[in-house]
Amino acid sequence: MNLTHVDDNNRAKMVDVCCKDDSFRVAVASGKIEMSQEAFEAVVKNNIKKGPVLQCAVVAAIMAAKKSSELIPMCHPLMIGGVDCDIEQLDDLPGFKVVVSVKVDGKTGVEMEALTATSIALLTIYDMTKAIDKSMRISDIQLESKTGGKSGQYRRN
Amino acid sequence: MNLTHVDDNNRAKMVDVCCKDDSFRVAVASGKIEMSQEAFEAVVKNNIKKGPVLQCAVVAAIMAAKKSSELIPMCHPLMIGGVDCDIEQLDDLPGFKVVVSVKVDGKTGVEMEALTATSIALLTIYDMTKAIDKSMRISDIQLESKTGGKSGQYRRN
Amino acid sequence: MNLTHVDDNNRAKMVDVCCKDDSFRVAVASGKIEMSQEAFEAVVKNNIKKGPVLQCAVVAAIMAAKKSSELIPMCHPLMIGGVDCDIEQLDDLPGFKVVVSVKVDGKTGVEMEALTATSIALLTIYDMTKAIDKSMRISDIQLESKTGGKSGQYRRN
Amino acid sequence: MNLTHVDDNNRAKMVDVCCKDDSFRVAVASGKIEMSQEAFEAVVKNNIKKGPVLQCAVVAAIMAAKKSSELIPMCHPLMIGGVDCDIEQLDDLPGFKVVVSVKVDGKTGVEMEALTATSIALLTIYDMTKAIDKSMRISDIQLESKTGGKSGQYRRN
Amino acid sequence: MNLTHVDDNNRAKMVDVCCKDDSFRVAVASGKIEMSQEAFEAVVKNNIKKGPVLQCAVVAAIMAAKKSSELIPMCHPLMIGGVDCDIEQLDDLPGFKVVVSVKVDGKTGVEMEALTATSIALLTIYDMTKAIDKSMRISDIQLESKTGGKSGQYRRN
Amino acid sequence: MNLTHVDDNNRAKMVDVCCKDDSFRVAVASGKIEMSQEAFEAVVKNNIKKGPVLQCAVVAAIMAAKKSSELIPMCHPLMIGGVDCDIEQLDDLPGFKVVVSVKVDGKTGVEMEALTATSIALLTIYDMTKAIDKSMRISDIQLESKTGGKSGQYRRN
Repeated sequence: MNLTHVDDNNRAKMVDVCCKDDSFRVAVASGKIEMSQEAFEAVVKNNIKKGPVLQCAVVAAIMAAKKSSELIPMCHPLMIGGVDCDIEQLDDLPGFKVVVSVKVDGKTGVEMEALTATSIALLTIYDMTKAIDKSMRISDIQLESKTGGKSGQYRRN
Repeated sequence: MNLTHVDDNNRAKMVDVCCKDDSFRVAVASGKIEMSQEAFEAVVKNNIKKGPVLQCAVVAAIMAAKKSSELIPMCHPLMIGGVDCDIEQLDDLPGFKVVVSVKVDGKTGVEMEALTATSIALLTIYDMTKAIDKSMRISDIQLESKTGGKSGQYRRN
Repeated sequence: MNLTHVDDNNRAKMVDVCCKDDSFRVAVASGKIEMSQEAFEAVVKNNIKKGPVLQCAVVAAIMAAKKSSELIPMCHPLMIGGVDCDIEQLDDLPGFKVVVSVKVDGKTGVEMEALTATSIALLTIYDMTKAIDKSMRISDIQLESKTGGKSGQYRRN
Repeated sequence: MNLTHVDDNNRAKMVDVCCKDDSFRVAVASGKIEMSQEAFEAVVKNNIKKGPVLQCAVVAAIMAAKKSSELIPMCHPLMIGGVDCDIEQLDDLPGFKVVVSVKVDGKTGVEMEALTATSIALLTIYDMTKAIDKSMRISDIQLESKTGGKSGQYRRN
Repeated sequence: MNLTHVDDNNRAKMVDVCCKDDSFRVAVASGKIEMSQEAFEAVVKNNIKKGPVLQCAVVAAIMAAKKSSELIPMCHPLMIGGVDCDIEQLDDLPGFKVVVSVKVDGKTGVEMEALTATSIALLTIYDMTKAIDKSMRISDIQLESKTGGKSGQYRRN
Repeated sequence: MNLTHVDDNNRAKMVDVCCKDDSFRVAVASGKIEMSQEAFEAVVKNNIKKGPVLQCAVVAAIMAAKKSSELIPMCHPLMIGGVDCDIEQLDDLPGFKVVVSVKVDGKTGVEMEALTATSIALLTIYDMTKAIDKSMRISDIQLESKTGGKSGQYRRN
């Protein structure tokens, strides 16, 4: 298989999607952040007290979804139709799992938007907790599913 | 320990660093992307042929380092003094490891810049390879070391 | 009535508009800035001499309309079709009234674009006049009318 | 008095601050949004339930403070040192009052940053509540105080 | 003929394109940079060794195409469908010629996107070579052709 | 001589300027746009009537100076201290000459800021005049002078 983003002169290109039809597309991505028990408890306690750490990460995720085409060089600008971000508490890790779902009615998919939003939400949690624990690790950023578009449906096993 | 980015009214705040002295600071972060053998070989072959995939990821990393304070809500704007990004080929994973080093002479650290740049480089590799493999996974985004500033040196074990 | 931008987990979300039809929409917003007689006369005199204060505010308004979805966290990106900005001289206040009209053929309205553009135009007048008067006040930023979309027409009394 | 942002050819200019000394500066701005009783109660209830409306406005304020020099054409880029945003419930209006404080150790003041952040926080509340009430009005955006810099202290009467 | 971007009050406006039909449009622009023999040879040698100068300029061009409506005040936001950038070596000048082609299925043309991308690619070559030669000159930035839209086809003689 | 923006692995890097001292620096750049007599007269007439074309180009220049590090991948973020933009009428070309001067007290020069601002001002004139003449050509974008910094003074012959 070929790399789609490389032209005949071996240069980067933004793939032409003009001739594609608009279709309804959804992409869901997820990722995790693992932290010390002490940092985890600080975030959980903050969340119970209506604190801003996780709310802030949700807002950052949604704003990042809109910025994906500014960050990922070959990513198309898209009129995103909807974004949802949820954050699950993982007591055993300990840490948090971020799940972002992005929807569009457009000519190209929103996988990069969902993955970028997930990454930025996790980095926001890192930023707001790093005074307690600098060794936190972000992992398992991956596409969970996508629907719509010519390449059809994808669902992670 | 307390969360530094939360004020007395339990709202998010950007921590005041005005009274800190400028100091020379370096932060190094890294992360990995794991992909199918087929996708890996396509990127390796592209790189041998002077192709743009990894070069594009390096450029994206450097530009993202400069955008961190736009993406991470409580992150301070900083006049970044230098950014290096290297990408190692991991034949066994298979996949790639991105390492970003950011330097500043300023009032606050560049951990978030290094981590954000690493994340965006990995997402750029994903974007340019996703036509071959949608199941790639980004992992182990973490701070390797930091020097400078009041909290002193950190080196990952 | 419910808040539309809050999901079942009580988190912020960007409302899904994918299934809405494109329709032609217009939103008009306005706002005022009140200033000292001295500051007012400086701006009026500048305007008579082809000076840049009000022209600069118009340009800032149009550029801000295009940036609304970067600024307002849950605001959808939109391909704005047209923006007009007018500035009236209010001799009695004394001060200026900014009126911005934004048009789109799209899935969601442009109220936020018109209101954001109005706000930034007023702040630009403030910025360019603040050496004379720091006590200027910006008021009455409001939606004048909107047409198009499912919720139909709105006209302020 | 003269308009500082206009050059000898009657064109807009960004005032030269290179020769100014760094000094510690604080600016505080405030503004209000007035809404229907129904919209007000929806936001208050949302806040009690740890909902995101006001938290989202605080995050938007802090991010907008960092974007002021992108929005206000003649505004200098600045390395903001700290931002606090508080939102008071005004039962009698009914509505909310936003107060933003911005700090910097730099060559020019942060009045525009405080005023821009205040404006965007108010617009964010508007956006997240507009499905209930389109007639909300934003008013009294004004500088409360500033300290530091050559022009010295300002405090609103 | 009239200036289209000026309203009846002699103010700048973003022209209303809401009523235009979507059509498939392509614009091609080009430009040159002339440099000393020494700087030219450094770039050519870098390119032979898989070096990043020209690859970086291509990436900058594609990212700038997406930013045109943020930079050119009256330029419409557009969902660009594809961007190609090629760089030719001009041994006789000596220097380089950048050619950018932008495609869209939309309501307005992509001439400004192609011209802006060309300009930024040339400035990127300047930036990465300026330690060797500060006297480089960028010239002949021009539209080569456009197709689609009401004004029809344009081809430079 | 070597390319400064390429690291030992032949990748792009942002040059480290942390150890440089702050110094007062000025860069002046210029460029021209050549157009048909008809387009030229439309802009001149617009300018006489206090019209926005040239004022808009000045504002675009100043805002672009602030965005240089977002556009030019290896360009450092800088706290620009002042920007002036002048536009001369060239009756014989016919066309216009843009001259931009940028000042900073910082660790690295502002050549790219002056050149980028010049380019965007010229593109803005193109955009607002292109309905009359699509064959306009932008040329002679070049550094006129720079002062300050380790490499000392440069003045174009």
